Order: sequence, then structure tokens, then C-alpha cells
Amino acid sequence: MTDAAPDFDAAFGVQLDALMRWRRDVRHFRSDPVPDAEMQALLANVSLAPSVGHAQPWRLVRVRSGERRARLADHVDGQVLAAAERYADPAQRDQYRSLKLHGLREAPEILAVFSDDRPVAGHGLGIATMPEMLRYSTVMAIHGLWLTARARGIGMGWVSIVDPAALAAMLDVPGEWTLIALLCIGYPAQASDTPELEQRGWQAREPLTDRLFER
Amino acid sequence: MTDAAPDFDAAFGVQLDALMRWRRDVRHFRSDPVPDAEMQALLANVSLAPSVGHAQPWRLVRVRSGERRARLADHVDGQVLAAAERYADPAQRDQYRSLKLHGLREAPEILAVFSDDRPVAGHGLGIATMPEMLRYSTVMAIHGLWLTARARGIGMGWVSIVDPAALAAMLDVPGEWTLIALLCIGYPAQASDTPELEQRGWQAREPLTDRLFER
Repeated sequence: MTDAAPDFDAAFGVQLDALMRWRRDVRHFRSDPVPDAEMQALLANVSLAPSVGHAQPWRLVRVRSGERRARLADHVDGQVLAAAERYADPAQRDQYRSLKLHGLREAPEILAVFSDDRPVAGHGLGIATMPEMLRYSTVMAIHGLWLTARARGIGMGWVSIVDPAALAAMLDVPGEWTLIALLCIGYPAQASDTPELEQRGWQAREPLTDRLFER
Repeated sequence: MTDAAPDFDAAFGVQLDALMRWRRDVRHFRSDPVPDAEMQALLANVSLAPSVGHAQPWRLVRVRSGERRARLADHVDGQVLAAAERYADPAQRDQYRSLKLHGLREAPEILAVFSDDRPVAGHGLGIATMPEMLRYSTVMAIHGLWLTARARGIGMGWVSIVDPAALAAMLDVPGEWTLIALLCIGYPAQASDTPELEQRGWQAREPLTDRLFER
């Protein structure tokens, strides 16, 4: 049974723009928990994401064990230290080291998102030449989760300074799953319409005109 | 200068859910053009997408040449035919062949989206261990574009049955750009809250409970 198609008005469009402008990669979280009903509402929206061949390849692991969380945080701290060595310029290296890059110890919820590289669903449609479409589908599910969370005042941070294979082992998942994201979820310490890396002088937003071409 | 943080209310959340539920991968387009002001508004939102290290790796190519569009459509038709051969079951192969998988000849706008694998912006932050984060960032920009379009009544279809290297050559882009998506954009022939692949019996939506785990 299908309801009538909604007609999104201009006021909604303005709010959607604001949602995108105020979505942030959050690294500073308040310590209060996200009510379970809120978490369930967030997670329910994942099913609405687009996926190649309707394969729905996302696999979500909610990390409930404090011991596992501590191991994840220690792992990321090690990777962050190692990555600092890539910066030959001492000033840039110092700046990098001064950045807070994750909230894995404070965020009330930790979610690891994997993508199934060999899902039964979808029957292979759309991945003959671009098997990476499965992982891209999972990425869109994460982006939808991010926007849904922000609309409810909940912040999310995507931690990518990880060894994906090490995380898969730590979380004891099937071999055909590839780690896409390690996510911190909780109420943000503050709101902003400016990325933290821009506030901290690491990288400014650049004009779209530099990224738009015609052929 | 930062405005006060918006407070998204429950009514907005309901509309956002509806937006996600009524976003579709569109293959049937009306022939009327998308006004250029609408295209510019859509494209402007791309800059709001999250990106690793704030690297903004998306590179958009708007295809204006009819000759290039025809070559793209011919290429995809060839790939679709070849992919049919992967289905050993004749009934499934026939069903696959009966699906309309792209609107490259009818959609008023064609956009090819690439990701720069070696961007200057971002200074390498967040990609020491997961260089694929650059491509994932570009995928999120596409998903944001998709939602923004649907909020304006504009449909989008993501065509992935392509040889990415062949498309890069056809569109004459720099070697460090990787094709992420070939997009058809225009007003959809109809609205639906059910994926076309589900309507056509290819693949149903499956419950999130099958995809949610705890550790």
C-alpha cells in the first residue's frame, strides 16, 4: 500500500540545506547516553539507503563491550601517532598532533559499519564492472544515518585512521565483510556550521567552481 | 560569521524520513529540461558534503555534448548486454534483460562524478591507512546531491554498469581521477516509495534485524 507522494515545499528545502550545513564530523561528545529509542530510530533509517541491485550490503556492529571499545581506541591512537610521521614539516606535524581526531573513549555509542562483498541479495545486478558499488552503497547508508542523527540533535564522527583488517579481527566478523567506518555517536558538545578542520586552520572550504567541468 | 544553530523539530524529522523513503533510483524521465537555476542549486549543495581531511575530492563533469552522451549510452548498453551473460538461469537472465537500467538517452542532464585520488586539499589527513576514504567522501557528496534533488522534485539515477577507465577516457579527464558514478538527472515520470527492482520482483527489502549485530 503506497501513500500519495509527498510534496516537499521550499521551507523544507531550506531546512534540508541547513541540515547539511550544520552536519559535522563530531569529535567532542557530551557523556549523556543516547536513549535506546533514539538509536533504534536512527538505525531504522539505514534500510532506506540506496543500494546497487537493492543488495543492502550494510552490516552494522554495535560495540557494547567496554573491553572491545578500549582496544579500538588504543588501536586508533596508535595509528594516529604513526600517521603523524608522514608529515615532514615539523610545524604541520605539530598541528596534526594537536587535532582531536576521535571521541572513541567518550561517545556513548560506537558503531562499526562493514560492507558484505558477497551478498546474496541483489543477485549481482550492477556490480559486474564496478564491484566497489557495494561498498559505495554502504557509504550512502552511513551518510543517511549521519543526516538522520543530526536532525535529532545527535552527532556522529567517522574515524578512518584505522587498519580495517585489524578491526575486522577485533570485532570477530565474517571474512567477506570489509570495514567501511568506525563511528562515534552521541550528543555533540557544541554545534557549528564550520568543519573543525577549517576552524583549526587545517583546510578551508574551496569553491565548487574549481571542481565543476563541462565536456 | 556563524548564525545560531538551527533546531530541527519533529515535523522536519518526519519529512526527512519521507524524503529518504521516496528517493528513488530513477530510470524513467520526463523530457522537459531542468532549469539551470535548479541545477546550480543542486550542485551548490555538493560542497556541504563531509570529506576526509576536508579534502573535497569530488570532481563533477556535466556532459553537454550530444555526441559524448550517445557514446556513453552505447557503452552502457554494451556493458548491460555483457552482464546478462553472467546469469546462468535463463529465467533470471530474461528478467534481467527486461529491466530498464538507465535513462541516459532521455534524461535532460548527465553528470559524471569522479574522485581525485591525489588531492592537494586535506593534506593527507585520515587517509594513511584508508585511502579509499577519498572515494567514500565523493560517494557522500553524490548521496547529498540525490536527496537535495528529490526535495526539489528532481530525480536521479546512478548508472554503474560501466567500465570506469573507458568513461574516464571518453570524458578526457586527468589520470588521477577515478570514476565513481554516471548520473542521469531530470524530472521523474512517476513517484514511488518502492524501489523499481522491488516492484519488478528482482529483490525485496530485507529487515534491518538481519544486518544488525552486537559485540
